[in-house]
Amino acid sequence: MVFETLEWVGGVGGYLEMIDQRLLPGEFLKIRCTDVESLYDAIKTLAVRGAPAIGVAAGYGVCIAVQGLRGGDLSAALLGIEKAVEYLGCSRPTAVNLFWALDRMKAAAGRFAAENPGADLPALKEALLAEAHSICRQDKEMCKAIGRHGERFIKEGAGVLTHCNAGALATAGQGTALSPMYEAHGMGRRFCVYVDETRPLLQGARLTAWELGQAGIDATLICDNMAGVLMKQGKVGAVITGADRIAANGDTANKIGTFSLSILAKEYNIPFCIAAPSSTFDLSTASGDEIPIEERGADEVTSFGMRPTAPDGMKVYNPAFDVTDAANITAIITEKGVIEKPNADKIALHLKDVNHGQDARATSD
Amino acid sequence: MVFETLEWVGGVGGYLEMIDQRLLPGEFLKIRCTDVESLYDAIKTLAVRGAPAIGVAAGYGVCIAVQGLRGGDLSAALLGIEKAVEYLGCSRPTAVNLFWALDRMKAAAGRFAAENPGADLPALKEALLAEAHSICRQDKEMCKAIGRHGERFIKEGAGVLTHCNAGALATAGQGTALSPMYEAHGMGRRFCVYVDETRPLLQGARLTAWELGQAGIDATLICDNMAGVLMKQGKVGAVITGADRIAANGDTANKIGTFSLSILAKEYNIPFCIAAPSSTFDLSTASGDEIPIEERGADEVTSFGMRPTAPDGMKVYNPAFDVTDAANITAIITEKGVIEKPNADKIALHLKDVNHGQDARATSD
Repeated sequence: MVFETLEWVGGVGGYLEMIDQRLLPGEFLKIRCTDVESLYDAIKTLAVRGAPAIGVAAGYGVCIAVQGLRGGDLSAALLGIEKAVEYLGCSRPTAVNLFWALDRMKAAAGRFAAENPGADLPALKEALLAEAHSICRQDKEMCKAIGRHGERFIKEGAGVLTHCNAGALATAGQGTALSPMYEAHGMGRRFCVYVDETRPLLQGARLTAWELGQAGIDATLICDNMAGVLMKQGKVGAVITGADRIAANGDTANKIGTFSLSILAKEYNIPFCIAAPSSTFDLSTASGDEIPIEERGADEVTSFGMRPTAPDGMKVYNPAFDVTDAANITAIITEKGVIEKPNADKIALHLKDVNHGQDARATSD
Repeated sequence: MVFETLEWVGGVGGYLEMIDQRLLPGEFLKIRCTDVESLYDAIKTLAVRGAPAIGVAAGYGVCIAVQGLRGGDLSAALLGIEKAVEYLGCSRPTAVNLFWALDRMKAAAGRFAAENPGADLPALKEALLAEAHSICRQDKEMCKAIGRHGERFIKEGAGVLTHCNAGALATAGQGTALSPMYEAHGMGRRFCVYVDETRPLLQGARLTAWELGQAGIDATLICDNMAGVLMKQGKVGAVITGADRIAANGDTANKIGTFSLSILAKEYNIPFCIAAPSSTFDLSTASGDEIPIEERGADEVTSFGMRPTAPDGMKVYNPAFDVTDAANITAIITEKGVIEKPNADKIALHLKDVNHGQDARATSD
């Protein structure tokens, strides 16, 4: 990638540098987190967003937390880590990935202390940084693998449509839904990306449009209600979006608007693909009917910044997500491969030898 | 209606009062046009919009223009009217309805002068005001008739979805697409309206939401990409939108996003209705393929007010309209009745005895 969404700078005494996504696309600024309080704020206020990216940031957050610890007693350090984990866990209480990464860091610390009874604090700090780096590296590998498996859905000279932002800005690597585009672009393929602006929060316009532009990929921004016309005109060769949760039968929850795209794609026989880490599957959820859909506040729809765009007190329906039926999905692309025409059996088989690592099942925007 | 979008106040020496739609929904203010310059500005800057409303306003505009004329020579007055007609015609050069109304006023003046060679200027002014009142009255009757024919598509306890604003604010009467809702509401039927916000210019959020609220109709605002989920949930009993132009075979051009709604409605067997005056038919256009689609500027999508929401210089596709295939349309509702499953034969029959009066074939937003 031509930019790093988040990056650890230096060794044990280093700091976390992240793109401040609150300022995009108007301004490109990086923030430096040298204490847990600033990282807490960065997660809470969406300077960093996207399930994988939040997980990676939280891992490094534990490294930042232990920097302040002094003395040689590891059990005191473990207590300090526990406190930091609890504190950082409050920054985004609905983000499953945040807890997954924090738990993994806490477990690594406990394991290190148990396996190295005579070790000192500097050695623990080294072990924790190694663990955080490992989370980050695995995330990058996962992204890259999704791209390699998914690039074949992007044809030379064709258009590909995406919704919301499941890109490099949502991960430490080259994203999930956008990864096949980066991969195809890297291979020299020529194609164009149609970017749904993604109402109400405009992640497509603000983030996806920005990151594709940074990478030099030909991108055209549209309002969500224009996607159907492009499909009718034959300009969309494939739709690729991310996922927030995938049920055992393949029903997929993703940003509101995804489901309608799947119906439109079906009408025009356009491949409709979901690209997401295998950890996005939730086998405890039999089908999409069981996935609760978060409803968000009216103000996201009734105003822009401080300026009202609808009558005062207007009633609003603002679901954050919708569920796309497995029957409408041509393929689910994970880091392990591609599940064509997904159903419960194929998904179970696909996940059989998956090491359930990073869990991206988070409300990430 | 509980409000008048535009209203002539007084007699021959009166003035035109209109809701300033640029300020809605934040502020409700009326502007008074006492000279043609202020009316020109009002049309040009969208204080008044919607094809029928622009036509009615233009008719009264000619009445305002003749107020300044003095002396008894009718031929000098006719020249003055011609000048005013030419001037007002430049206020919105793509609005077909504007020219239709101005031509009608000019013809009325010429006819009056020819038929009443001895008449004086005050008598001409009276004749012109009568003609403008007639345009206004016919518009109100057209709206009302559409409502009467269309109300049966709104079922007790059901939801009805609309897109953009084809309401009272776009006409002198109770609108076209919204007229069946006003009619059903007046009959005591209980139902709710889902209002697409209608990106990029938010006519749904700003105007439709406002006018339904004024009338006390239960309305819920949604982003355009949320309509599909409501249909899937069984909450939409019918879709009713307006039309900008209807081809001879029933293919219908309307605000961008309409076509996608028709595909979604088809998927869930939901009646999809177009409500528009019969003058919206353009029999010289055989099918939707022949309807040119206006593309508008990128800034409508890339910024909000002065605030950028997408990267600088972002490429944008911004079609103002799309075309819904006749095959997706359950019914076209006009002031003359309802054309179910429209096709060229049924449309020709429907229009046979229609007096081609007011032409609403305008790019009105």
